[in-house]
Amino acid sequence: MLDCIIIGTGPGGLSAALNLKTYGKDFVWFGSRSLSGKVQKAEEVTNYPGFPKVTGEELLAAFQEHIKSAGLTITEKTVTTILKGDEGFCVLADNEIYEAKTLILATGVMTAKQLEGEAEFLGRGVSYCATCDGMLYRGKKIAVISNDPKYEHEVEFLAGLASEVLYYPLGYTTELQNEKITLLEKYPKAVAGGFKANKLIFTDDTEVAVDGIFCLRNAIAPSSMFAGLLVEEGHILVDRAMKTNYDGCFACGDCTGRPYQYTKAVGEGNVAAHSVIAYLAEQKKAQ
Amino acid sequence: MLDCIIIGTGPGGLSAALNLKTYGKDFVWFGSRSLSGKVQKAEEVTNYPGFPKVTGEELLAAFQEHIKSAGLTITEKTVTTILKGDEGFCVLADNEIYEAKTLILATGVMTAKQLEGEAEFLGRGVSYCATCDGMLYRGKKIAVISNDPKYEHEVEFLAGLASEVLYYPLGYTTELQNEKITLLEKYPKAVAGGFKANKLIFTDDTEVAVDGIFCLRNAIAPSSMFAGLLVEEGHILVDRAMKTNYDGCFACGDCTGRPYQYTKAVGEGNVAAHSVIAYLAEQKKAQ
Repeated sequence: MLDCIIIGTGPGGLSAALNLKTYGKDFVWFGSRSLSGKVQKAEEVTNYPGFPKVTGEELLAAFQEHIKSAGLTITEKTVTTILKGDEGFCVLADNEIYEAKTLILATGVMTAKQLEGEAEFLGRGVSYCATCDGMLYRGKKIAVISNDPKYEHEVEFLAGLASEVLYYPLGYTTELQNEKITLLEKYPKAVAGGFKANKLIFTDDTEVAVDGIFCLRNAIAPSSMFAGLLVEEGHILVDRAMKTNYDGCFACGDCTGRPYQYTKAVGEGNVAAHSVIAYLAEQKKAQ
Repeated sequence: MLDCIIIGTGPGGLSAALNLKTYGKDFVWFGSRSLSGKVQKAEEVTNYPGFPKVTGEELLAAFQEHIKSAGLTITEKTVTTILKGDEGFCVLADNEIYEAKTLILATGVMTAKQLEGEAEFLGRGVSYCATCDGMLYRGKKIAVISNDPKYEHEVEFLAGLASEVLYYPLGYTTELQNEKITLLEKYPKAVAGGFKANKLIFTDDTEVAVDGIFCLRNAIAPSSMFAGLLVEEGHILVDRAMKTNYDGCFACGDCTGRPYQYTKAVGEGNVAAHSVIAYLAEQKKAQ
């Protein structure tokens, strides 16, 4: 069993990972190797102490350099489900199970609103993970909703399985070309169906029949990933030690609330890691 | 009346100052222009995201560069007393009064223990500020206890007024030479006296008679600076928004508790500044 699993490679997750590494903890760090899309897009950052007026790209390059220099490894898998076990946590990432004594959630904030019915149909026609559930839709017609072009390789992966992919890129343009993919510019607002989701409804009240709907977003609502996790207005509830309502589970960065700032995120990542270190030490003493 | 006063030029104070500057707030920033002695002494910092393996000196140089680039000004005065007024706070710095609607305490942590009787005799023979109270000891015999050589110019200033200065440098060596200053290597443990303090007692139970005692330390216990401020085990009590028990008064960095880490401090400074900005906006709306 791992000492810790960190979910998220934004500034909060990075800060936590640096500290666990320094303390020689055995952990897996899930997320995108391109780190935070939000940091990258920032035109100018003036309030990250030590970096007078950098662009987001420059700050991201410094983070990448730090990851390399510290010898950190990012496991590029999508976490879809977390369960609390007797002695720790089970994390499902691209359909593989990982177990750890502690958890640090650095999942970012859901800027995209969930669709009506999305939570209800999750696992029954609605999926957050192409790798995990793509095989279920072999030869079927599916819709893919995304708010980040970084998932396009997953859209292509799905096109290799499905008979037809209706692709709704939200808030970005794409040049993706594939005979099975139809690019659409409508705004989905709801998912509907019977036992399984079977249609997507749009803001103009038109609808389309599909066999499955993939929502590929750069953040998953923590409450749909981890049942029982206390959340308030979309933010994970934590105390000053970054502890959530689950013993051994900590959170940091945008997912814990405003201000949505890199500096706040790295500070919380540091505290969360130190809380993990203290928790592991106490657990060891108790044995 | 100022929008805000920030006390302390460690990483927490710096982070707060950068944000208030960005938002165009009218504030005064008190502390040492040499910033944090603690950062400077750090041999290697590995966990400040974006700076792979820097020395404390290098990180401090980056902070100084950021201060310059952001056009921030440090007011090098010692804050000794804070009072809550009707509409804000009164801060006494080198005997001058400053008023502000909000306050950010980034005073660091007291690593030095207070002497027995020190709090009791504060203002009656015990002083934390050479500039403020030096004149009261013209021609008198005084003791100076310090844990940081950066106060040596204050020790010399006191020697220019007093008839005799007994100087107890704690934890560092000094080459200060002055005919009125006697360097001593004993460890003071208590202050005693009648209405006013008139002697210093040492760990070997010997004592010396003096007219006044100056304690020049790189952090002042927040509770002796600000009566009524809630403190637990030496740390200022704050919530997740870095708010203390006084409305409009926030704190960040080591003074709010462990872990004593630069990354945690900058994160908290960011949050404290955003809380100040939100508080000022609410106050304006209420008018």
